Amino acid sequence: MSSSNTTTEDYTTVDQQISSFLSDCLSDADCTQLELQLTQFVSCHYHQRPIALVTSGGTAADLEVNSVRCLDNFSTGLRGAISVEEFLKRGYAVVHLWRRGSASPFGRVLCQEILQQPAQDGLHVDSLGKLFAGGDEDDEEALVQQVLDQQDPWLTDPNNNNNNNDTAANNAHTMNRNDHHHSIALHRHVLYSTKLQTALQERATALKEQRLLTIPFRSIEEYLAKLKLASTALQESKSLALVYLAAAVSDYYIPQHEKSQHKIQSDSGSITLHLRPVPKTMGLLRDAWAPDAFCVSFKLETDSNILRKKAERAVQKYNCHLVIGNLLHTRYQKVSILAPPELGNHTTDVTEWPMHEVVKPHPQQQQDSLESAIIDFVVQSHFEFISNSGYQQQ
Amino acid sequence: MSSSNTTTEDYTTVDQQISSFLSDCLSDADCTQLELQLTQFVSCHYHQRPIALVTSGGTAADLEVNSVRCLDNFSTGLRGAISVEEFLKRGYAVVHLWRRGSASPFGRVLCQEILQQPAQDGLHVDSLGKLFAGGDEDDEEALVQQVLDQQDPWLTDPNNNNNNNDTAANNAHTMNRNDHHHSIALHRHVLYSTKLQTALQERATALKEQRLLTIPFRSIEEYLAKLKLASTALQESKSLALVYLAAAVSDYYIPQHEKSQHKIQSDSGSITLHLRPVPKTMGLLRDAWAPDAFCVSFKLETDSNILRKKAERAVQKYNCHLVIGNLLHTRYQKVSILAPPELGNHTTDVTEWPMHEVVKPHPQQQQDSLESAIIDFVVQSHFEFISNSGYQQQ
Repeated sequence: MSSSNTTTEDYTTVDQQISSFLSDCLSDADCTQLELQLTQFVSCHYHQRPIALVTSGGTAADLEVNSVRCLDNFSTGLRGAISVEEFLKRGYAVVHLWRRGSASPFGRVLCQEILQQPAQDGLHVDSLGKLFAGGDEDDEEALVQQVLDQQDPWLTDPNNNNNNNDTAANNAHTMNRNDHHHSIALHRHVLYSTKLQTALQERATALKEQRLLTIPFRSIEEYLAKLKLASTALQESKSLALVYLAAAVSDYYIPQHEKSQHKIQSDSGSITLHLRPVPKTMGLLRDAWAPDAFCVSFKLETDSNILRKKAERAVQKYNCHLVIGNLLHTRYQKVSILAPPELGNHTTDVTEWPMHEVVKPHPQQQQDSLESAIIDFVVQSHFEFISNSGYQQQ
Repeated sequence: MSSSNTTTEDYTTVDQQISSFLSDCLSDADCTQLELQLTQFVSCHYHQRPIALVTSGGTAADLEVNSVRCLDNFSTGLRGAISVEEFLKRGYAVVHLWRRGSASPFGRVLCQEILQQPAQDGLHVDSLGKLFAGGDEDDEEALVQQVLDQQDPWLTDPNNNNNNNDTAANNAHTMNRNDHHHSIALHRHVLYSTKLQTALQERATALKEQRLLTIPFRSIEEYLAKLKLASTALQESKSLALVYLAAAVSDYYIPQHEKSQHKIQSDSGSITLHLRPVPKTMGLLRDAWAPDAFCVSFKLETDSNILRKKAERAVQKYNCHLVIGNLLHTRYQKVSILAPPELGNHTTDVTEWPMHEVVKPHPQQQQDSLESAIIDFVVQSHFEFISNSGYQQQ
């Protein structure tokens, strides 16, 4: 399958650029190591279960070689992080190409649900008060605890239990209690949180079954280089592989040889930056890196007509299987997915494809419920695609 | 006191720019609210104790009005966050002008010391395993727990204790144990961490005494506007006030009317960005906003001769009281502080001021020990300054 609008020559140029990104950001040893890790991960799963490559977060375009300043694409990475959880829930193995420091699967549950802070933020000075007992939000518990300590209503303290004459047990228990006073306790909101418990269990299951591989990146060059390695590793899985491109990828960057070597000096008034377009890799991904994989891309616009046109173009130019369209102001409530009339059958003219609207079941719910509905649609389409592709265990 | 190189006309222009930043990023009501908060905070402390305004983290220069892309100054905010803790330890009240999402005081202890991750990162997928019992790093404990559960060597289970005939207590205890199985437990590394315990205690003390006020910012405009509000509020504290400018402030930005209204479209190949110099506010801060405060600024360079020259200029041009100089490659091991020969007496010619080298006591220690030594020096200088300034309780 070859995309109509792109020549082999274009591909060669882009591929060379990606190779140079790779050698700039990874030593040969690290590159070999990562390739090995990916191959092992994919081959451990490829006849067992579908495998998703999910990208998330923004990419940084550095202005300097010894970088202090960068051009950043703002993205919390939350959509991607929740999607990883949703794919894992549905039995997929997941390679997560993750912007370092952006929202993480499972970790974001603690940040969002419990600490009520943005999922990509570090623990701030208030979060500790929400995380640990005795914090500023915990006066009530401290009070209850004080009463309990004084009255010991469950008679759990052996010193209050006249029937207990086992001195060794007494000592051990007392030691234990004293010891407990020197330890740190969780805030009760955390201690009994069902959401956190579920997240910890799902995380433990996924890790035990070795179904999650996280590959961190920071710069745009690192992202593209690792996208190539990861998607190429998926080739083995044929149509069982799914590529879910939720990262906010920079359109512009400064090529290595045009970057300032050191921190740009500020003595000289205004400065002018010339930014180059980032090499377009979607064609290569679809035609060369992972040609048999099911490919889902994203578009964000402010006008629904432009959104439809851009989504169609992603299908025409790159043969994307689904395009998830977001309008800036409604994207947390609904998305429009451009998909073929019969799921899995991508031969119809794209201008006749319907837009499927996926809406958050209840407007007041968390974003999870929208992502869950989207992944339901995506997984169904992927399975139709697998059955149409004639995938067979070899 | 008026800086020799800057005219009143310059100040008026810069002050107008800062006022427009303020009205762009805060509604009138929010501005009044913040001013009130600051005034109350300062007046609650100003005859009781010294007060430090600490800035930390990088500033974002947005390219678009509805911002998706920004130019960012990379800074973890760690130096500022640790400095806030160090000032609080020494009895200061602290106004912390904090880049949202950068390292936070106390919060960074959990991230760094316990989870072994960058202090400004959100909780990532691995951190949960380090935070909670039963995580992937906790096999050893699970094993020990299993043995304990089976053998009950401390005879803590009343069902195994033949001497115990109190059925109510039995039931209560059993209920308690079952209940415990549904709750989330901390990883033992966290449970008994002395560093975390100390951080939690110090944090609780500072909050109880209302000695910490955090003011978050994101963009360069927001930073400068809030710096003006915060430093102006410090005026009341006269020489008891200290301004500690540890934030990495962008030198360039795009003024509001030159920003693209919407997301810059990527169809048109390369783009060129014209960046303007950020208004220099140090002169205003020293002469108008907080003229009586002790002022500490930072310089980062790669060459020690340039560093000395730039530090001298900060003293000559803006009458900074101390300049903390960092060389890029040694900044985590030592800093050079440009200070007058007699602390607190700033009348000598700056070219005769010595550079005091402050070195981390033990190279293997955490950054805390370097910051602690720096703050020792700064606080000593500040107290000499206070006694020379003839500060008296009114």
